[in-house]
Amino acid sequence: MKIAVDAMGGDNAPEVVIAGVEQARDAFNDVEFLLYGDENKIKPLIKDDTRLTLIHTTEKVESTDEPVKAIRGKKQASMVLAAQAVKNKEADAVLSLGSTGALLAAGLFIVGRIRGIDRPGLMPTLPTTDDKGFLMLDVGANAENRAQQLLQYAIMGNFYAQDLRDIKQPRIGLLNNGTEPNKGDKLHQETFALLDADKDLNFVGNVEASSLLSGVADVVVTDGFTGNATLKATEGAARTILSLLKHTIMDNGVKAKLGGALLKSDLKGLATKFDVSRYGGAALIGLKAPVVKAHGAADAKAVYYAINQIRDMVTNQTIQKVVDYFEAHPEMVTKTTKEA
Amino acid sequence: MKIAVDAMGGDNAPEVVIAGVEQARDAFNDVEFLLYGDENKIKPLIKDDTRLTLIHTTEKVESTDEPVKAIRGKKQASMVLAAQAVKNKEADAVLSLGSTGALLAAGLFIVGRIRGIDRPGLMPTLPTTDDKGFLMLDVGANAENRAQQLLQYAIMGNFYAQDLRDIKQPRIGLLNNGTEPNKGDKLHQETFALLDADKDLNFVGNVEASSLLSGVADVVVTDGFTGNATLKATEGAARTILSLLKHTIMDNGVKAKLGGALLKSDLKGLATKFDVSRYGGAALIGLKAPVVKAHGAADAKAVYYAINQIRDMVTNQTIQKVVDYFEAHPEMVTKTTKEA
Repeated sequence: MKIAVDAMGGDNAPEVVIAGVEQARDAFNDVEFLLYGDENKIKPLIKDDTRLTLIHTTEKVESTDEPVKAIRGKKQASMVLAAQAVKNKEADAVLSLGSTGALLAAGLFIVGRIRGIDRPGLMPTLPTTDDKGFLMLDVGANAENRAQQLLQYAIMGNFYAQDLRDIKQPRIGLLNNGTEPNKGDKLHQETFALLDADKDLNFVGNVEASSLLSGVADVVVTDGFTGNATLKATEGAARTILSLLKHTIMDNGVKAKLGGALLKSDLKGLATKFDVSRYGGAALIGLKAPVVKAHGAADAKAVYYAINQIRDMVTNQTIQKVVDYFEAHPEMVTKTTKEA
Repeated sequence: MKIAVDAMGGDNAPEVVIAGVEQARDAFNDVEFLLYGDENKIKPLIKDDTRLTLIHTTEKVESTDEPVKAIRGKKQASMVLAAQAVKNKEADAVLSLGSTGALLAAGLFIVGRIRGIDRPGLMPTLPTTDDKGFLMLDVGANAENRAQQLLQYAIMGNFYAQDLRDIKQPRIGLLNNGTEPNKGDKLHQETFALLDADKDLNFVGNVEASSLLSGVADVVVTDGFTGNATLKATEGAARTILSLLKHTIMDNGVKAKLGGALLKSDLKGLATKFDVSRYGGAALIGLKAPVVKAHGAADAKAVYYAINQIRDMVTNQTIQKVVDYFEAHPEMVTKTTKEA
């Protein structure tokens, strides 16, 4: 198994990328890595070059670049070359910590969509209080979706939850503005009907954004616009409160500091609950190969976890299952699909 | 000034309703109250009947009732009678802690819409880290909105932020999936253009759900579906973390409990930051009179704050300003408006 890694993407590249890759290489002896990036920066970081191949390039996609333009224009960028390696069958999957928009564009225009899927979705894992986590998609690969596309997300999410989370019959929920079946706008009412009629899915009905972290479903299906707002609102509230908590402890004198010190290890457990990097990165699904985005601020451990996740996808042939499913169910293919 | 109060709505009615009304009556000598509900339950709770008029009814809207059906069928329900009092000009405003859906239906079908506004919106105040808070609308009165309606929300929100929050030029933000002007689906791109072109508004551009609690805008405009998900995600994340924090302190032995005790007053300050009841309730705006929903679990103090908010609306004649504005700007009136 070969994973193409954009070694230059992310806030702390290439340091954390190389460190995470080496951790994963040591842990998984069935994985080889193609590292794309500046050899002058990368070479000094490599401790052991076993199963690492370095492909030198100095060009890179910047977070300020317009995504599609960057992918089309910067032919030698580390992210573009990594995606190209998958297209050329030199690698099985791509990992990047770089711009989500650019990686999405690289996925669509270089790796390519699975036949029948016209709108790949971005699928992170979010935390739950019982530490099981859940998959949510789409969280923003698209600004607009149709009901048939949301059904496709449910089907794909179902395979991923089975393969990556070891859940036999994942509970599929539809993010909506109430739990009753008739809730939502036309899109969500139509989607509800499609999900409810699909006998292959363990559809548990509508779920509300307020109960996501309680673990009401294993896969939460949503249109990209609502999913994006919901993900960001959840992250923003969590970050704000944890930061206020830190200030509460640090800025309120000796008594508060002492209280914080006594709670330190327990509070760390609380913060860990909301650190979802242990589940891997956000997968761009509906593409012909695993394309995974790790957080721009990811550390080496998070890179390791993202590689672990990719390895699970490749080992389980999750994408092949999706391909086979849509081959066998031509009625599931959206009409606007142009991909062949 | 007369406020019609649905004394039977909410989890702790009529106790907290009456207690809050009496606090407000003592604080504001320019306000009279019409209390609708069961006199057998209410009378024993009243300490002093100055400026309180009790109108007996035993019927009430249940939280499980289908909203429109309840409002049309239960003619003697406390919520219906309170709304009817406004329609008959016997009261200036309505307050209820009951079902949001039913109060929305009562607002639309009994109080009535302002000429030119076909989709009233639900507008709560959300917290910010600087304790200033911000208004957000619509958070779910509608499952779908058009761009022109979002512009109307901005205009109405602008008047409310001026009158209730004492902000001269409220910063208006559009909730979107990125801050760049071209972001979002067609609805949000169209809305951006309308807001940007309106010279009466201090439009600060797109805002993301992740930065709402940092106070990026004084009024956040959103369609009801996205607003509902964003509000619920924010509330859900805050509630989950604060509850986990409590368990972290209580379930981890003596050391953690001691740490919690030392931090107690400071942590209380943190929880208070997220208690938005001090700003009042959620106002249903676009109606001919103030219709305010306080939380079902509100305490007497929250009822008092909601009355304070209604008093500000009535004193400032905020609704008249909205009416005058749309009279003077017929081009702002949505085409589907049927109201006269």
